[in-house]
Amino acid sequence: MANPNNKPILFTSLSPALLNLYDINSSIVVIIDILRATSTIATALHNGAKEIIPVDSVPECIRIGKQMGAITAGERDGKVAEGLQHGNSPMEYPSSFISGKTLVLTTTNGTKLLHMALEKGADQIITGAFSNLDIVCDYLLHQKKNVLLACSAWINRINLEDTLFAGAVIHKIGKHFNINCDASNIALSIYKEAGTDLFTYIKEKPASHYLRLSSFGMENDIKYCLLPNTAPILPFYESGRLLKG
Amino acid sequence: MANPNNKPILFTSLSPALLNLYDINSSIVVIIDILRATSTIATALHNGAKEIIPVDSVPECIRIGKQMGAITAGERDGKVAEGLQHGNSPMEYPSSFISGKTLVLTTTNGTKLLHMALEKGADQIITGAFSNLDIVCDYLLHQKKNVLLACSAWINRINLEDTLFAGAVIHKIGKHFNINCDASNIALSIYKEAGTDLFTYIKEKPASHYLRLSSFGMENDIKYCLLPNTAPILPFYESGRLLKG
Repeated sequence: MANPNNKPILFTSLSPALLNLYDINSSIVVIIDILRATSTIATALHNGAKEIIPVDSVPECIRIGKQMGAITAGERDGKVAEGLQHGNSPMEYPSSFISGKTLVLTTTNGTKLLHMALEKGADQIITGAFSNLDIVCDYLLHQKKNVLLACSAWINRINLEDTLFAGAVIHKIGKHFNINCDASNIALSIYKEAGTDLFTYIKEKPASHYLRLSSFGMENDIKYCLLPNTAPILPFYESGRLLKG
Repeated sequence: MANPNNKPILFTSLSPALLNLYDINSSIVVIIDILRATSTIATALHNGAKEIIPVDSVPECIRIGKQMGAITAGERDGKVAEGLQHGNSPMEYPSSFISGKTLVLTTTNGTKLLHMALEKGADQIITGAFSNLDIVCDYLLHQKKNVLLACSAWINRINLEDTLFAGAVIHKIGKHFNINCDASNIALSIYKEAGTDLFTYIKEKPASHYLRLSSFGMENDIKYCLLPNTAPILPFYESGRLLKG
């Protein structure tokens, strides 16, 4: 990849189905699943969770949960998955509940994408959400490494909220990277269009995930997940676990 | 798919790698490859080409061209492919040259996507470009069938110009369809952001394909391909050929 001015390179993958287009062996991959996996991951770690073990199936979640005596959590299609104790709502993980505990988490899109990035040999994997936007941006800025913003989408269909987050990161730190990537340009445009009230933007489009979650009565979750910097920590993937970086 | 108000459904696929997410058996698939396959297809048919045979490989292009005594044309990575007579520029096909003739065409992205849609069992396949924007929209409006706007992208990477065209179609006729598709919303936002001077928009972003083609001296091609309704015909795929519909 040509890199005339020595800035690191940034790409955005708007769907897991597009991940394999990018060489990530020397990149930090930011897993993005705003509604709600990566918002919940940031929140639970910020509220004192010892570690979060992302797994890509419900049976695996149950098995590891039993083995470790850990809390099992996750959703399929927006609802608590059968056989698990908790869902994928950040509201379920206040410090009074989660502090010091291990959470084993599986979700429809986000945890699957994390495992794809792992198998593809990402140099580093972190997770990003509006909940920890600034700390993610600061980290990427100071690492001076190539970056892939990897949106979890919805069963591979591009979604608005993950695209918005990619746009928010590019808005904050894009000028410090070489960006020859139309998906990144598109994400930035969408973020600029959205303005400051992301909830109203998502609601009025409406985003397909807004329709899905609000039909389950989860408007408050959506509102929370779009607020910036409510959980200012950096979830860092290491040896099968997400830890506070 | 829920369809409460009896409008047909419209989806947008921003990359061939996302095509298999959509059920197209009862849909009109609009193949979009603005720079330059579908612009060239519209232009050549408008200028009197008898038919265009889209093929997905250079050897197949050469073989069929010989067999039919037809003109062979196509590009790989933005340049005339070795062994073919002509390139993928709409400027190469004035009526003085192409009228009454058969063109066998292969391109990096567009003709490949057309064959994917064919294999996946699309109900109808047409091609769309700014060159024939209005007639494509009129056709979709009057058919009252489900629609998939299928962007050819660049080797599966989402591109700005195909996304813009999807947005232009949605801007014109979207209200006559049920759209619960974030990719469609994103395309519409991008088109609205671009305003009326698409060339300046593409140039100033800059779009990755602008950089690629302008480095080959093809600015005029890009300008032409972004002009609306220069070739107002409907290319319709039937029995291996694109014909004037």
